[in-house]
Amino acid sequence: MTRSPIEFQVIAASGSARAGVLTTRHGPVPTPAFMPVGTQATVKALTPEEIAETGTRMVIMNTYHLLVRPGPEIVAAHGGLHGFSRWPHALVTDSGGYQAYSLAKRKRLTERGFEFASHLDGRKIDLTPEEAMRVQGLLGSDIAMQLDVCPPAQVERPELVSAVERTTRWAERCLSARAPGQALFGIVQGGTDIDLRASHAETLARLPLDGLALGGFSVGEPPAHMHRTLAQVVPHVDPGRPRYLMGVGTLLDLVIAIGCGVDMFDCVLPTRNARTGQVFTGGGKLIIKNARYASDLSVLDASCPCPACAGGYSRAYIRHLYQAGEILAHRLLTLHNLYCYARLVQAARLAIIEGRYASWAGERIRELGAPEPTE
Amino acid sequence: MTRSPIEFQVIAASGSARAGVLTTRHGPVPTPAFMPVGTQATVKALTPEEIAETGTRMVIMNTYHLLVRPGPEIVAAHGGLHGFSRWPHALVTDSGGYQAYSLAKRKRLTERGFEFASHLDGRKIDLTPEEAMRVQGLLGSDIAMQLDVCPPAQVERPELVSAVERTTRWAERCLSARAPGQALFGIVQGGTDIDLRASHAETLARLPLDGLALGGFSVGEPPAHMHRTLAQVVPHVDPGRPRYLMGVGTLLDLVIAIGCGVDMFDCVLPTRNARTGQVFTGGGKLIIKNARYASDLSVLDASCPCPACAGGYSRAYIRHLYQAGEILAHRLLTLHNLYCYARLVQAARLAIIEGRYASWAGERIRELGAPEPTE
Repeated sequence: MTRSPIEFQVIAASGSARAGVLTTRHGPVPTPAFMPVGTQATVKALTPEEIAETGTRMVIMNTYHLLVRPGPEIVAAHGGLHGFSRWPHALVTDSGGYQAYSLAKRKRLTERGFEFASHLDGRKIDLTPEEAMRVQGLLGSDIAMQLDVCPPAQVERPELVSAVERTTRWAERCLSARAPGQALFGIVQGGTDIDLRASHAETLARLPLDGLALGGFSVGEPPAHMHRTLAQVVPHVDPGRPRYLMGVGTLLDLVIAIGCGVDMFDCVLPTRNARTGQVFTGGGKLIIKNARYASDLSVLDASCPCPACAGGYSRAYIRHLYQAGEILAHRLLTLHNLYCYARLVQAARLAIIEGRYASWAGERIRELGAPEPTE
Repeated sequence: MTRSPIEFQVIAASGSARAGVLTTRHGPVPTPAFMPVGTQATVKALTPEEIAETGTRMVIMNTYHLLVRPGPEIVAAHGGLHGFSRWPHALVTDSGGYQAYSLAKRKRLTERGFEFASHLDGRKIDLTPEEAMRVQGLLGSDIAMQLDVCPPAQVERPELVSAVERTTRWAERCLSARAPGQALFGIVQGGTDIDLRASHAETLARLPLDGLALGGFSVGEPPAHMHRTLAQVVPHVDPGRPRYLMGVGTLLDLVIAIGCGVDMFDCVLPTRNARTGQVFTGGGKLIIKNARYASDLSVLDASCPCPACAGGYSRAYIRHLYQAGEILAHRLLTLHNLYCYARLVQAARLAIIEGRYASWAGERIRELGAPEPTE
């Protein structure tokens, strides 16, 4: 087993929660870490400087989207996504499989891989494990994800088993094909079937993967099922490697999953919800377009240090911008929501280091469970 | 005549071109000055900090748009547009008449003012000179513009004369109605009729207006007609007050108008063209969506200090963002274009101070006349 292109050190634990440092070619990342999603090689509405200002040190970009446009060769000509997008810190790419399955047309899944037609121009693309590694190699991310099979919630057990087994074979093919210097994470599947998940985690741990992800969550199952499954499955995921819960989640999901021992997250919620005018705060959500904010002179959240709140932009002004379709609304709301997520994982990390995660998490869960105050 | 709420000092001249300082309640503005347009209380896609970074010290916002949404009372509750939009420097508002005439429905122009229905909700609005001043008082701009009558190009002389005479009467009504501490500019009309323009400029100069604007340009007449008219009319506009050419124009228009003695400009071109992917450079325009830029690793303009160029964003990356409909494309292109305009007026000012405006302008005119290089 060659030396891993990343290092992962757990520096403190509090119950099952752990604080660590993930060291990559593009610097260290404090964990637990939340990764904003930069689908098209940009975290929507923001610059790399603004994202880094939140304390974020790792983002994820989408191989499927970049494969269909502009194509990985153009990105490689810039020295990879770091040069292309000007993001200087750690960068993860997914394998492209998930979006290929959800967005592309005329798709076919075989043992070889995914065949599909681009949703943009109908071009036929053949996404095998080897091709997923070639493309991610050109994209130059610090951490690549294996191509996996991610069935929807509520499929029958035989289909889950088949997805797990194929995902293992694809992990081996990805390991054989990976680009030099690029870390590779395997992906644990198995739905909400505890035994299947646990055994898959143990199978993948026998491979020289640099990290282990939990895929196939937040695919339609009730949040409580996910929380319960995580509590039982995460202990079976090798504690020596970073554990990454893909595509999750709400602030509440993060608090619970960190408590189970998860180290990394990515989710479109803070950025996507910003674009629909949903504002996260420590005490719940507010919907900026509501008429009640039309003459509200207060900032989004008086305790927030983000440029929208610290800059003194009133709810009334941001609502006006939102109603007028102004880009600045999306910028301010996206910044605010990403600060909210970044502050949550930073506070979680501190609570772990100080050995008081359970009580911190209990308080957060009470706050986050509270509904938006009504008029 | 009470003391003017602004001060204007000409500090240097070179031919008819002049460099000055316009001092407002919100600080000094070096002239010649180009004002970005913040239609809905935001210069589209940018923050106030980013605009100020370009060296810009004065913006213009649109009374019509803010009157129909969110309404001037909400703005006044924030202490005016400065508090609402967080722009800390000088701020001009127009009267609302121009947009009322071009955007609103069921409009009627009488001696009393404009009657029209809001383009958003059909609400009837009665925009008299007095109402234009009341609304601009609530908006709290440093400089308000009189309500004027701005006929399209190529109307017959009697209509031009009638517009000029009514504009004068409305200037008097605006003076009587203006808010304390707010400067008021009159607007010279008269189309491309030199005698009418000159006599209107002299008529308005007899009123205690704080500055004199040239309206009714760039309304459909060929640029050469505007340039010729300006050369003959600007000398008749009181040199002791700031001269403001409204709604103009291209970089070439600015070079020529500054040479005639104009001090202030506003135009949507740099911001609007950014949104359609047109990039201004010292040597002409480039259209970022052209296929030739798909793998172009160079920045927009290697000599440009803007965050897009100095930040190392390649043409290929910006084209990708533009094609993908990403907000960051609009941000980077808007910043670049506003830097281009800001740098032009800054360089013009320096050339005036150094007494070499004619030769500087000659070089710019040659460069700006050059078409985009072809493949």
